Amino acid sequence: MPKTRFEMIKERHRKTFEEALSKGKIDEPLLELCEFISKTKNYFTSSHCSGRIMLLNSDLNEEKKEAAFYRKWHRKVEFKELMNALTECSHPLWFKMEPFILHIGCGTMENAKKLIELKDKSGIKRGGIMVLSEGKIILELTGTQYISVPLKDKKMLLDEQALKIVLETANKKMDKNFEQIKRLTINAKKMLK
Amino acid sequence: MPKTRFEMIKERHRKTFEEALSKGKIDEPLLELCEFISKTKNYFTSSHCSGRIMLLNSDLNEEKKEAAFYRKWHRKVEFKELMNALTECSHPLWFKMEPFILHIGCGTMENAKKLIELKDKSGIKRGGIMVLSEGKIILELTGTQYISVPLKDKKMLLDEQALKIVLETANKKMDKNFEQIKRLTINAKKMLK
Repeated sequence: MPKTRFEMIKERHRKTFEEALSKGKIDEPLLELCEFISKTKNYFTSSHCSGRIMLLNSDLNEEKKEAAFYRKWHRKVEFKELMNALTECSHPLWFKMEPFILHIGCGTMENAKKLIELKDKSGIKRGGIMVLSEGKIILELTGTQYISVPLKDKKMLLDEQALKIVLETANKKMDKNFEQIKRLTINAKKMLK
Repeated sequence: MPKTRFEMIKERHRKTFEEALSKGKIDEPLLELCEFISKTKNYFTSSHCSGRIMLLNSDLNEEKKEAAFYRKWHRKVEFKELMNALTECSHPLWFKMEPFILHIGCGTMENAKKLIELKDKSGIKRGGIMVLSEGKIILELTGTQYISVPLKDKKMLLDEQALKIVLETANKKMDKNFEQIKRLTINAKKMLK
């Protein structure tokens, strides 16, 4: 029997995932969830990020481009790491903490409804179905933990003490973000087949 | 002929909208778009916010509750307004600029696809279908312009000069946010019936 469009899409994403996995390119906090989803019959994952603390090369207008990352950590960050990064830098920067983002795909409306149910049950307020075509439905899930502030223009906007507080806050938000991923992982294992 | 579930839901939301409109409770930048959608045959709006600059009553852990707004402006803010608000305040605060958020509903998959097309054509990266039931589908649309930073703990984290720069940046982001609403409004008028 010829494969359906969904089966072909899932197979392609499974291969891409296995390749990324073998190269160590899957963010560790999302590894268990992505591996589980890849092995289900009805779902696949496409892009993902487990959440990050970062310094962006950007002036106040913040025209973000992928090339604009100055430093990026998918984990909590120590103050001295941040300070080291800053002493080497002479241009404008933004400080950001962004939540996880994950795309999960499926092939039928019935399964898409399950994904929305998973989102709601896991207390994830942001995201939704962003691709809706025959045999290919994709849901985006993302957290709500954010910090975003211009950190340096001609000079630093935050002094060392203030920056320490902002980083501590960002690290706490990373913890909350990882907790949300854990809840999502537990629920996905119960709800998706 | 008895009304369909969608027709009943649309009628209820139309009434709620008209009531809010008569009380001046629709955010001005989203007024044209919401009025247009309310008059279409196939769509309705439920909750909305046109974007805002705000001061939140919140410690570093930021457990946001609706009651926690200390100041909220759905427009650009002057520096002296912000300073006035701050001199009156003796507790921890966060400074935030958040983008618009809008929920648009419809009754069929065909019309839901149009909404996703509208989202994509308007360059809106965040959001998606978050409710998917018989006769009631709701799409959330939201911008990507954010500033979010703890502003005051025991003392201020930003000095006056830094705060001025952050507020100017927030005001520029409000402009971009309103431009995105305009693009969305123009496209909605072309695409939704």
